[in-house]
Order: sequence, then structure tokens, then C-alpha cells
Amino acid sequence: MQYLFTFFALTAIFRIEKPADAPPPNIVLIFMDDLGYGDLECYGGYPQHTPNLNRLAAEGMRLTNYYAAQAVCSASRAALLTGCYPNRVGISGALNHESKIALHPREETIAELLKAKGYRTGIFGKWHLGSREPFLPLQQGFDEYFGLPYSNDMWPVNYDGTPLDTTNYRGRYPILPLMEGNQPLRYLKTLDDQADLTKVYTERAVRFIKENHEKPFFLYLPHAMPHVPLAASQNFRGKSGQGLFGDVLMEIDWSVGEVMRALEMHGLSNNTLFIFTSDNGPWRTYGNHAGSTGGLREGKGTAWDGGVKVPCIMRWPGRIAAGSVCNKLVAAMDLLPTIAHACKADLPKEKIDGVSLWPLLDAQPGANPRTEFVYYYDRNNLKGIRKGQWKLVFPCSSQTYLHPGATADDGFPGKWGKTEVPLALYDLSSDPAETIDLKDRHPDVVTELSALADKYRRMLGDDLVKVEGTEVRAPGKVE
Amino acid sequence: MQYLFTFFALTAIFRIEKPADAPPPNIVLIFMDDLGYGDLECYGGYPQHTPNLNRLAAEGMRLTNYYAAQAVCSASRAALLTGCYPNRVGISGALNHESKIALHPREETIAELLKAKGYRTGIFGKWHLGSREPFLPLQQGFDEYFGLPYSNDMWPVNYDGTPLDTTNYRGRYPILPLMEGNQPLRYLKTLDDQADLTKVYTERAVRFIKENHEKPFFLYLPHAMPHVPLAASQNFRGKSGQGLFGDVLMEIDWSVGEVMRALEMHGLSNNTLFIFTSDNGPWRTYGNHAGSTGGLREGKGTAWDGGVKVPCIMRWPGRIAAGSVCNKLVAAMDLLPTIAHACKADLPKEKIDGVSLWPLLDAQPGANPRTEFVYYYDRNNLKGIRKGQWKLVFPCSSQTYLHPGATADDGFPGKWGKTEVPLALYDLSSDPAETIDLKDRHPDVVTELSALADKYRRMLGDDLVKVEGTEVRAPGKVE
Repeated sequence: MQYLFTFFALTAIFRIEKPADAPPPNIVLIFMDDLGYGDLECYGGYPQHTPNLNRLAAEGMRLTNYYAAQAVCSASRAALLTGCYPNRVGISGALNHESKIALHPREETIAELLKAKGYRTGIFGKWHLGSREPFLPLQQGFDEYFGLPYSNDMWPVNYDGTPLDTTNYRGRYPILPLMEGNQPLRYLKTLDDQADLTKVYTERAVRFIKENHEKPFFLYLPHAMPHVPLAASQNFRGKSGQGLFGDVLMEIDWSVGEVMRALEMHGLSNNTLFIFTSDNGPWRTYGNHAGSTGGLREGKGTAWDGGVKVPCIMRWPGRIAAGSVCNKLVAAMDLLPTIAHACKADLPKEKIDGVSLWPLLDAQPGANPRTEFVYYYDRNNLKGIRKGQWKLVFPCSSQTYLHPGATADDGFPGKWGKTEVPLALYDLSSDPAETIDLKDRHPDVVTELSALADKYRRMLGDDLVKVEGTEVRAPGKVE
Repeated sequence: MQYLFTFFALTAIFRIEKPADAPPPNIVLIFMDDLGYGDLECYGGYPQHTPNLNRLAAEGMRLTNYYAAQAVCSASRAALLTGCYPNRVGISGALNHESKIALHPREETIAELLKAKGYRTGIFGKWHLGSREPFLPLQQGFDEYFGLPYSNDMWPVNYDGTPLDTTNYRGRYPILPLMEGNQPLRYLKTLDDQADLTKVYTERAVRFIKENHEKPFFLYLPHAMPHVPLAASQNFRGKSGQGLFGDVLMEIDWSVGEVMRALEMHGLSNNTLFIFTSDNGPWRTYGNHAGSTGGLREGKGTAWDGGVKVPCIMRWPGRIAAGSVCNKLVAAMDLLPTIAHACKADLPKEKIDGVSLWPLLDAQPGANPRTEFVYYYDRNNLKGIRKGQWKLVFPCSSQTYLHPGATADDGFPGKWGKTEVPLALYDLSSDPAETIDLKDRHPDVVTELSALADKYRRMLGDDLVKVEGTEVRAPGKVE
């Protein structure tokens, strides 16, 4: 078994154990908004170049089978920060300034777990888990907060910069507050006011590294971009040669490079777990103001893989093998236990859905910590379930972009349609774009996944508060 | 412009010039049969692990926008070895033992160009450019030939191993000759006889490296696998846990590792340009005996991207940046001038269609050597044309797999259909799966690409021999 010998030899070379008394690692978590699986050059993206992200990947691991928890903003972020399916913590959809829902203060976030271990914690960017003071980041474990409380399109401004009146639902939003701690620092009123968002978030992140380079820190950098309305600073506007989306992605790549450089300047690269990922796939109705799924079906706002499968890069030199790749099924909920393990932090007291990814990151032979994933799009509606190579999609009405006229240019949304989806079984190993229904050929798989789905429905679905004693959680209602 | 500074700084670090008197590099070209864009773990493939190919990529460059010349075997190989669109050298489709067509002996192959520079040249695997003696590899620049003259399914054996009678077109094939030089060495009569193909090709390749490690060599290793009928040796059969296709891919990965190891043992890794790619996408009607396009539309036997966009990895330590990635449009025809440049070999005397990829491999800023690609499926029929992000598909009858019942298990072919395709324009930057027709939104692009297509029709199409004086070539007819 020469093959196995080679494999173990490689594993032996790649696994480099940290000494037991190594200082706790810093955590950098860069979180993009609506960046798709096919947007980065190192994930096959075209035509944009992403040299800094390519380098991050070349120095770390590309996860190629990573799922955001849901294809919509607040739900995805709730899962990221709590390690739970969003249903479990009562978050659904995209919260706005009037929402009666927020991430409950009693939920334990990554920031709280690390703060308890003496970490300095900062968020520079979008929160979107409750915009009133009791629910803002400073009340969820962060020492510093600078950024938007919700999405950058939740304002009374049209995509061409003209004001919207109240006949448009977005016309009823207030102007956008840019928060410093618990208070608005200033207000964004025009498209130009968003142009520097990526830049100033990056500057704050770099300053945070500089100010905290002598203690362990958790830097959470949830960019506003490339969510519509797209905006790039003067340094990048018109510079990519590939339109505004290209300019925005060029600035994002620059931002990643600046954070990498700040770590290098302070000698922290080798003691930092650096994670880059996205909250969901591209918002494809926005045409050339949206990114690419790389060929996966549909996008944001759906439970097709284009909505939830996104890039995820993890770098920790000396600990994660440089230039490695991992195709095992993993999900956003897994980041909390992975980070907690790295930092020797406690897990939340209440149940979570994530599993530690260290068996994969350490390249342990046969490691496969996550075998299942459920696709919700809203709190009560299980759209599909995945186990191994199989994805079973339940009959539903699904948003679709896949028709002529579905997309528009220049930031104006195209039309989308509704498709009635019948029960369907897809083999994602040979058909990742979910095109060929195999339910008639594999009825045994349909039966198995249907039963498994019922387990998740009882655990996470509409009946959550009625059925499962100890697993019940506050459903996110905050008044 | 901090960004540009960083970019140039990186470029400066990554570019490592060879001294002018460096010995000529060896060339290793591993060419798979029907391996799809989505089959390798380092290209997002799931669930198979490909640790050796991952390492090859981590030590070299992944090309993510590389096109085989055509989605069928002989045409693709003709282009690979001559640097020409297959039309230009008169090759179309998949030749069989009775074909009146072959790669004309006067066409200059990579092997001939390198042999003229003193290289030792060997092919261990499938030829498929003419099976009668005047057209075999020894007459096209190769010093050694061991392998099949055409595809491994061109024999009178069914997919379950039972013999076929002459009512089936494949039943009229003779048994499969395994050639040594110009003569059959032995005959393959049963499925078991194919089990060791990957193994013995690999052993011959390793022996070739050992025997020629003191002179420059060109090793061409065109595997039979993963073309149906799939077969793996005892060492791998049942070992992947992912079915026969997984076993076959595991053995292919082993094979790549063995070649890498042979180079290392002889101290040749740093002076070898190592290329790994495929002849076309997966043959999707074969269901779980075929691979994956990673979400691209259709597959082998079509002019959709799933048929022609395939993986391509290039490694040359010290010359090509480790862990790099390149998303520029490139094609199989470009390998000949790329190899010729590396080896300081002359280009063929007659016109070729390939361009050297060294500006990309050297990471020269702004390099973009290929701006256009034409999609033929057979000699006379231009199916589509690509320029930059745009692909214009011409009205045609297209093979399709995308319907229930299209695929089958266990190596038996499923049904395929014919779809009448209207004129359509796709933006591959946001829609690599060719799902949203934008011709009505971008009539200017339709006009531009239509005119460009006419240029290629005159140059490469049905009228080739009538119209273009000096560019005319022998159309492959050999009797």
C-alpha cells in the first residue's frame, strides 16, 4: 500500500503541533456580504483578480464544501456568532430598524466566549442582529463597535442615488446610521457616503490590531460589501477595468491584504487563526452588481446551493498546512466550536449545532465531523436536507432567477420569479448544480433523508417551543 | 496606490528568473480522459480526495479558465499535440480502427519539436490520432510508445463484461490491442484486462524517468481512465469508499504521486515543467461512472462549457509561483508554444492557433495572451464563440443530459436527448453555467461576436480548403 504510505508521510509532514504552552492565538474573522462561491480567483472566480486572497489561500486551507447557515443576512450571522442553526436562536430573514426580533442577549457569542478568556474583542462593520441598544454588539461581548446596524440598502435612497418616497418599502427607512459603540456617529445619506465604508472599516481593523498586538484579540470584520448598493473608494473606483463589482472586489482584496500586512508588521501572522468567508451567495437579480455562484443553482434568498455554499479560507501558519484544500461538508455553525477549541475557550452553556473542524484542519485521516446539513430559508420551512453526497429538496415554492429578464444592470434589481419545486433528490458529487432528479432511482435515500428531516423539524422547526424540553431556546423575540 | 505597490512587490517576490545557461527543462504532460472540471479536490471536487494532485497544485499554478479544444477525444488530442484547432489539422470526433482520417505525418507534434532539440520522448497511454502504422506515435516524434491506439471502450465487450454481438456498433470492434511501439504486445479481452492499465502506464512512466534522468525528456502520459469502462487495480478497487469512479480517481492520484516521487528521487523536480490536464469534460450519461463538471452546463460531447472547461495544473518550482492561480482564458492549443518556449524549441513551420502562456506563468502584470476561443463540436459546425466574459451560442441541435433518466448507474449509458438551442448570449463572469440569455440586453456584443465568428468560420470552418491560401492544411485524410 504505497499510496497509504505516501498519504501518512504527507500527513506527518504537514501536521505541526503547537507546544502546549503556546500563547492563545488571535482570531481574525473577515465576513463578506453576498459574496458568492464563484467570486474569488482562488475559487475559480473570473475575471477579477484577488491576489491577496489567493495568497491567504496559498498560505492556508481552502474549504470547498462550506455552507453558510441560511441564504439571508441576519439568520446567517446569528448562526456564525452562536454556533447554532438560526432557528434555534429564533432569528429569521433580515432584521430591520423596526424588528421585534433580535439575537437575545442571553445567547453566547464568539465574542463573549473569547472575552471571558481575556481577549480584546472588536467588530468593525455590519451587525444586523438587532439595532436597538440592548441588542447591539457592546452588549454581546464586543469591546469596540464601529459600523452599520443593518444592511446598507436599508435606507431611503434609490440605486441611482435619487431619494425614494414612502410608496417604496425602502423609502420608509430612516437614513443610515454609522454607529460608534451604542451611538450613531454620523449618517449616510447618499451613495457617495458609502464609498469609503470598506476603507474605513479596514483602517479601524488595522488600528485595532496595532492597539492590541500585545494581548490576544478577536477581530470581526463584517464588510458591508459586495452587498448592493455597491460602492468603492476613490482609490479603487474605475480601477479594476471590470465594472463597479470588480472595483468593489478589488478593494475587498486590498482590505484583506492590509489586515495580513498589519499582522505581519506586529509579528502576529503565525499566531493568528485567520478566517475569510461570506454570509450567503450572490443576490443574482442585481445582475452585474452581483457576484457569481460559480455555476451553483440560484443564489441568495433561496435554499439552492448557490444561496448557501460560499468560500471559506482558514490560515494559521504552522498549524494548518499551507496550500491545503478540504472538501468535507462543513457549515458556519462549526466556526464557534473551532475557534473555541483553538483559544481554549468554553463552549456556550446551551446546546449548539456546530462541531469543531480541527480534525479536518489537522488533516486527521478519515476525519468527517459533519455528516448532515439542513437547508432552511425561513424559520419554519425546511426546504431541503443534505447527507453526504445527497440533497433532498422538499416540495416548495422557490424563488428563481433563471429566466430571461431576471437580472438587471447598474444596480437596479431585475425581476425574479417563483417556481413550484417538486420533491427532488440530487447527487451533489456528480451534479453540484442540482439539475438531475434521481428520486426514482434511489427511493431508499429518499426514505432515509425524509426520516432524518423529520428529526430536524422536531428539533428546529415550527414546533420548537412545544416539543423539545431542554433544547428550547428564546425564539429571538425581544419585546 | 498602496494596492498597486503591494501587487508589484508580490510580483517581484514571485518571479524568479532562471539563469540563462540553465539546462533545458524536462516536460511531464499527464493527460486524463473524460476527467471533468469538478473532479479534483483542488478544483472543488467532492467527495474524492486527491492529495497528490492537491500537492501538485500547491507547488504550482491552478489554471481555472482552461479549455480543451473540443469535447471529444481525437479532436482534443490533435489540438494538444499540434497547437492547432483540430479543424486546422483535419481531425474531428473520435477515430476508430477503420478511420480514413489520422493526424497527418507532416503535422509537427510537441514530441517532434522536442526531439529535434535532443529530448528523449515517450508516450505511455492512449494515442487516438490514427491506429495504423504510418500514423502511430513512433512516426510522430516519440521514441517509445506503450498503450492503446484508441479509446478503451472501442472493443466488443459490454459494460458488465459480457461480449457484444455485431448488432451493437461496438460489437463490430476487434479486441483491444495494447501496443508496444508499432506492434500489438497483447490483447485486452475482458474488463479485468483493463484493471492494471493505470498501474502499468505509471510503471512505464517511472521507468522512463529513471532511464532518461541524465538527458532532457518529454514524458507524455495519456491515461485511459476515467473513461468508461472504468477499471482500477487490486490495490485500489473498493478502497476509496466512493464507488468505482472514486477508486479510479484514487489510483490516478496515486499515479501522479508516483511520477512526482520519481522526479524527486532523481533530483529533477525543480527542472521539470509538470502539466496535468484532461481531454474533455465528463461523459455524463454514464451516471456514477462519470465525473463532475462542478456545475458547468452539460459535459463531453457538447460545446457547453461542461464539455470543454477542464482542470489544468502547471508546476515548475522556482519558475511558476507555488500556490498561485490564474483565471485568464487559455486553451489546449497554447501548451505547444508554452512548452516550446520553455525548451527553446522551434515552433512548427506552419501556422498554429496557440499562444505562449509564459506571460501568465511569469505573473506579468496585465498579461492576457488569449482573448478568444471558438467552440466547435465537429469539424464544420461552429457552435459558439467566446471573447472575454461573453459566450455567444449559435442556433443548433445540442446533445443534452439535463433530464430525468438521462444518467444511469454501473457503467451502462443513460439516454440523452437533443435540444434545439436558439441564439443565446451568456455572461460567463456571473453565469458560468450558461443559464441566463442576455442577447436582448447586449445586442452590440451579439453583433461583435457574430462578426468574429465569421472570421473563424472562414479560417477554420467548412470552407477551409477553398478560401484561405497559405493557411490551408491537409484535412487529415490519409488515404
